[in-house]
Amino acid sequence: MVKVVILGQGYVGSIFALGVERIKNGDLGYYGVPLANELPIKIEEIEIVGSYDVDKSKIGRSLYEVVKLYWDNNIPESLKSIVVRKGIHLRSLKNLPIEAEGLEDEMTLSEVVEKLIEEWKDLKAEVFINVCTTEASVPFESKEELIKAIEENNKERLTATQVYTYAIAKYAKEVGGAAFVNAIPTLIANDPAFVELAKESNLVIFGDDGATGATPLTADILSHLAQRNRYVKDIAQFNIGGNTDFLALTDKERNKSKEFTKSSIVKDILGYDAPHYIKPTGFLEPLGDKKFIAMHIEYVSFNGAVDELMITGRINDSPALAGLLVDLARLGKLAIERREFGTVYPVNAFYMKNPGPKEMGNIPRIIAYEKMRVWAGLNPKWF
Amino acid sequence: MVKVVILGQGYVGSIFALGVERIKNGDLGYYGVPLANELPIKIEEIEIVGSYDVDKSKIGRSLYEVVKLYWDNNIPESLKSIVVRKGIHLRSLKNLPIEAEGLEDEMTLSEVVEKLIEEWKDLKAEVFINVCTTEASVPFESKEELIKAIEENNKERLTATQVYTYAIAKYAKEVGGAAFVNAIPTLIANDPAFVELAKESNLVIFGDDGATGATPLTADILSHLAQRNRYVKDIAQFNIGGNTDFLALTDKERNKSKEFTKSSIVKDILGYDAPHYIKPTGFLEPLGDKKFIAMHIEYVSFNGAVDELMITGRINDSPALAGLLVDLARLGKLAIERREFGTVYPVNAFYMKNPGPKEMGNIPRIIAYEKMRVWAGLNPKWF
Amino acid sequence: MVKVVILGQGYVGSIFALGVERIKNGDLGYYGVPLANELPIKIEEIEIVGSYDVDKSKIGRSLYEVVKLYWDNNIPESLKSIVVRKGIHLRSLKNLPIEAEGLEDEMTLSEVVEKLIEEWKDLKAEVFINVCTTEASVPFESKEELIKAIEENNKERLTATQVYTYAIAKYAKEVGGAAFVNAIPTLIANDPAFVELAKESNLVIFGDDGATGATPLTADILSHLAQRNRYVKDIAQFNIGGNTDFLALTDKERNKSKEFTKSSIVKDILGYDAPHYIKPTGFLEPLGDKKFIAMHIEYVSFNGAVDELMITGRINDSPALAGLLVDLARLGKLAIERREFGTVYPVNAFYMKNPGPKEMGNIPRIIAYEKMRVWAGLNPKWF
Amino acid sequence: MVKVVILGQGYVGSIFALGVERIKNGDLGYYGVPLANELPIKIEEIEIVGSYDVDKSKIGRSLYEVVKLYWDNNIPESLKSIVVRKGIHLRSLKNLPIEAEGLEDEMTLSEVVEKLIEEWKDLKAEVFINVCTTEASVPFESKEELIKAIEENNKERLTATQVYTYAIAKYAKEVGGAAFVNAIPTLIANDPAFVELAKESNLVIFGDDGATGATPLTADILSHLAQRNRYVKDIAQFNIGGNTDFLALTDKERNKSKEFTKSSIVKDILGYDAPHYIKPTGFLEPLGDKKFIAMHIEYVSFNGAVDELMITGRINDSPALAGLLVDLARLGKLAIERREFGTVYPVNAFYMKNPGPKEMGNIPRIIAYEKMRVWAGLNPKWF
Repeated sequence: MVKVVILGQGYVGSIFALGVERIKNGDLGYYGVPLANELPIKIEEIEIVGSYDVDKSKIGRSLYEVVKLYWDNNIPESLKSIVVRKGIHLRSLKNLPIEAEGLEDEMTLSEVVEKLIEEWKDLKAEVFINVCTTEASVPFESKEELIKAIEENNKERLTATQVYTYAIAKYAKEVGGAAFVNAIPTLIANDPAFVELAKESNLVIFGDDGATGATPLTADILSHLAQRNRYVKDIAQFNIGGNTDFLALTDKERNKSKEFTKSSIVKDILGYDAPHYIKPTGFLEPLGDKKFIAMHIEYVSFNGAVDELMITGRINDSPALAGLLVDLARLGKLAIERREFGTVYPVNAFYMKNPGPKEMGNIPRIIAYEKMRVWAGLNPKWF
Repeated sequence: MVKVVILGQGYVGSIFALGVERIKNGDLGYYGVPLANELPIKIEEIEIVGSYDVDKSKIGRSLYEVVKLYWDNNIPESLKSIVVRKGIHLRSLKNLPIEAEGLEDEMTLSEVVEKLIEEWKDLKAEVFINVCTTEASVPFESKEELIKAIEENNKERLTATQVYTYAIAKYAKEVGGAAFVNAIPTLIANDPAFVELAKESNLVIFGDDGATGATPLTADILSHLAQRNRYVKDIAQFNIGGNTDFLALTDKERNKSKEFTKSSIVKDILGYDAPHYIKPTGFLEPLGDKKFIAMHIEYVSFNGAVDELMITGRINDSPALAGLLVDLARLGKLAIERREFGTVYPVNAFYMKNPGPKEMGNIPRIIAYEKMRVWAGLNPKWF
Repeated sequence: MVKVVILGQGYVGSIFALGVERIKNGDLGYYGVPLANELPIKIEEIEIVGSYDVDKSKIGRSLYEVVKLYWDNNIPESLKSIVVRKGIHLRSLKNLPIEAEGLEDEMTLSEVVEKLIEEWKDLKAEVFINVCTTEASVPFESKEELIKAIEENNKERLTATQVYTYAIAKYAKEVGGAAFVNAIPTLIANDPAFVELAKESNLVIFGDDGATGATPLTADILSHLAQRNRYVKDIAQFNIGGNTDFLALTDKERNKSKEFTKSSIVKDILGYDAPHYIKPTGFLEPLGDKKFIAMHIEYVSFNGAVDELMITGRINDSPALAGLLVDLARLGKLAIERREFGTVYPVNAFYMKNPGPKEMGNIPRIIAYEKMRVWAGLNPKWF
Repeated sequence: MVKVVILGQGYVGSIFALGVERIKNGDLGYYGVPLANELPIKIEEIEIVGSYDVDKSKIGRSLYEVVKLYWDNNIPESLKSIVVRKGIHLRSLKNLPIEAEGLEDEMTLSEVVEKLIEEWKDLKAEVFINVCTTEASVPFESKEELIKAIEENNKERLTATQVYTYAIAKYAKEVGGAAFVNAIPTLIANDPAFVELAKESNLVIFGDDGATGATPLTADILSHLAQRNRYVKDIAQFNIGGNTDFLALTDKERNKSKEFTKSSIVKDILGYDAPHYIKPTGFLEPLGDKKFIAMHIEYVSFNGAVDELMITGRINDSPALAGLLVDLARLGKLAIERREFGTVYPVNAFYMKNPGPKEMGNIPRIIAYEKMRVWAGLNPKWF
């Protein structure tokens, strides 16, 4: 059994919950789940035990009702038993057209942490999946600074993700082990403060920023060019979508944190910083969750010839990430069992846009996939 | 030193010769050559010693003059010393608007073979690069059948590539070693008859069909999808260009041999034969050597979501292949030195669309690249 | 009231019938119908009175049941009252995986004609919409030759469309007026034999080949370039789909008739025959009715600069044509009322890929639209 | 003879000067010039008599030397005789990495105006072409307010384009006629203050913002959809380039003025404001003057079917506009001769993104082209 708590019950969290239940009911196959059911821990063993959000219209409602906002037929009845609880806000929905409230409105952050730990003990939570809205955040670098900010109730310095991670670390220490999957850009697996904290708290961290959308595809295409020693002159990549995450990214500060994780692949894969423009570009409501991507890559081939690739696509944003989470929940449990606390690069390198720890970079996903399989105790597929 | 003979002095062969000389002169860097100058055998050691063609207007002219047909400035003077010799025709330019003649017009195939061997001994040839026009051919499967066809002067059964390979095998046996790089779709590395012959003749065969253009890119994109367990619903891939190779492919029979090597990747990479349409599509003269490619891939992601990718591009056909040949010439010499006769899958898997031997299939190129590096004595780049 | 008979109850005919009934029921707006409800004859006045096909599995079944093959929810009950009758085959489904039978199996073509006329008199048919599968056909040029072929029961010479048109002309003469909308490539409005016959038989002909898909879009893009005096170097246009029409076009002969109507726009719009490759390219079953199109256009701008456009798209094939038919049925009735017998260029120029009569060509659709509005008694929109 | 003064000697102005001289020398045909040489005033009659800029490194140099920055072979010697003069700056290069100086650094704006008028009288200037860098500007609406701003030397309120236009109006009044072609987004033909001033000053204004790039193409594609009554769900359009204009547009304020003229077409053509994202997106230096465009349009066809178009392209930015200027210079002279002072909608509607006067909107370019021809005394091409 893998007992999962969802932090941020938006589109991705809802498709994740829906998909897992549909698989359990035999209504859905394993497509979109990289490891399908190859792991010793089966998808059917995933049990969603808790859910947190700060949208007033969601708190107190059942997961069934929330999932209905994103999907309209055949929602499994089993989702009726989970109720969305009030979580940490700390400006995470700021500037969005959503009425929000957080636990910190009524108590100090230290009290929030204690309250959450008690709830999680009741739920016997094991793996926490963070799919909050993209935040504007500043990493801590030092554990002491982080602890000080919590203790001083410094609400301006901290984001929801940072407080959640701190609370989960404390929880993990008390109960002997837990895993935190950070699927958003806030630096956690890349923040030495959190990695150090995790190591001494029986906490597994996977992060940062789930590797979906155009970025991992760009990584593999750049690998393709790098291996043929083609010189990339320039890369332009546009993304536009109509879900809340794109709306949130119209906010300049949040956009920056996203831009960083997207851009880092260029130098990591090519070995030089080819001129590039890789940014989430805009919000266009009718596109919904199915974003439009457009990419242009220009490179030099043999004898000075210049080639061009133009890639466009329509990609369902939330299911892509939700499918990865089905693996990550199980890999989190596996890491707890193996007591591999801190962060796990072979997992991050495949599943994350900005794989921690900080000193590591991106490698071609196709290679990362094989390394991850080996880490998970599976045979490599081709190597 | 790597002494190279070019078989088929068309666009690819000319850009190869031009690029190698420009590199020697310091006029060109290593872009487009996958291994750049990492190998112990340096690019500067490549020496083109011979060239064969069957186009009447090329035979007897210098490489300098032939290269001028494809490139218009700063052609190295060094190309003036190599003269294009008459080679084997056997219908290889049939139906093309080119006046052709072949050695077999005046003598039997056995005599042709003997004549060529004598010439190659004079040239001290080591590596033979086959960049003839795509042929319609039938593999032999048995060595005996092949030998019989040569002896009986069966011009209808044999293609130019098959006779060249036979001649080179005989030459290799006599001189102690040679390498044949088959960059066109004719099955050689995939024909057990030739692989058996190579093993007993000190011949290295690399083949078949140089992995350039849309196909290796498609392979890596399919790998990308396979590793995320996305179910590919369908693949359409179009190619159109204006060089002689596209003109030749308007011929139905030749097209078939190309279609086969292009299509085989789908099942090899995905593990199932996703419905696909992958064919060279047409000839459009003003596109010249810079072909237009278009691709559409539709796949199922998590929770049944359907995504789509549309890829278009302009790709210089000949330089892409010529750049690979710069590696293959040197790897051929390396294999001779190591006495790895027969065919070498780790080389073929990266450089060839249809990697021999017959029983092996395609693997993701990014993986193949690492295996090839290891075979070549280099460190893997990421693994 | 406009009493319509559908010839060929496939995808297009079924979406047409479905859409018209849904509009009548208030379930669907007017999107995709160029003139919406601007005409004096309203969409609600269209009454489908008859349907013909040669697919054994369709003959004798209700339109309701046939539409269900293409659409799966909320089919209007009103379609239950129309039964698909046996029509003319004459090889129109040859080589397709469909068991077919035609009236001509049991009687001569002259008898078929008489039988149909009797049925149509019962139905009080006014407008006939031809959406049979694309045929391989040869135009007649002379009316006498056509009549002779019918009288001699020359089944090899004639196609289903040609015999239908002949029968409808005879019917029109007897009842005082009828209209024939030829939405497939068979030359009818472009065959002087049929136009002459129509003029003397009270028959209105609209044709040939409904202007949907990539071709009219290409026409408008070429117009865009022509008006800026940009010189088009080359045009490549690919189409691939998974419906019966694409399957039929894998047949070389049928493909040719399609290629012709697609290619003629280039010279008509640009004034010179820019090198082009414009062909239906292939069949890929999972694409279904939503074809994939890809286009590449390269042109010279000021000061010799070369620009490129790459266009891809997913386009629902049948609804696009069905929407045009909603106008054409009403315009057919209008033309009968005005007694404009023969063929009507201002209608054809907007709605048809190959607008008849033969001596007329393509003009930019945006211009043609205005002229058509004027013909229909409406104000031009912008001119 | 048409005596032309170029305001802003950047990429567009240089390609315009170069192209005109190459045409005069017989080195270049008429491609990219919409009316080619159909007008009674011939291209060969265009004479560039003056040039203004504020880039310190250009002022005082010959046009020959400036053109060399953008083009590297065969620059006509005739350009050596024109020297770039110091023009009006007023922050037009603010935030760009260019050292700039303007006439207003040393004198009041009223003095600048007088000085320029004297120079233009010497040059006998007739048509002024404004191709300054995109500015952030605020329209005046009232003529009095404009005059007051000049008189009060209000450098914060005015932009270079506004002061130039004022000066040219004053000049036109004195000499009896002149034309001002505003090829940038600053509202001039759309500012009632300037149109009123023009009418009473013998000034012809063409504007605003030359219709090149993706926007006029989008207009024609939207017209294509509108005429088929397809309902446009959403439009995304991206542009990225590497010339100074794209660099300037990274400045938020300038970008806004561009966004406005780009977006206005949607409602003008469709009749409703379909959700859209149409903005210059970014700067990517290696793309140079050949921008990359990407577009996505999603629309509803008949029976509720949803289609999609994805358009990408590489378009040379400056030659596209320069080609239009070759017509506009001549049409300006024509309008002076006809004494059509104020602004001329039939010209603007085809050549401008935001055609003035303010109360008029966009119409499909293909229609506008015909109307413009009629205005210019030519036969329509298709209507």
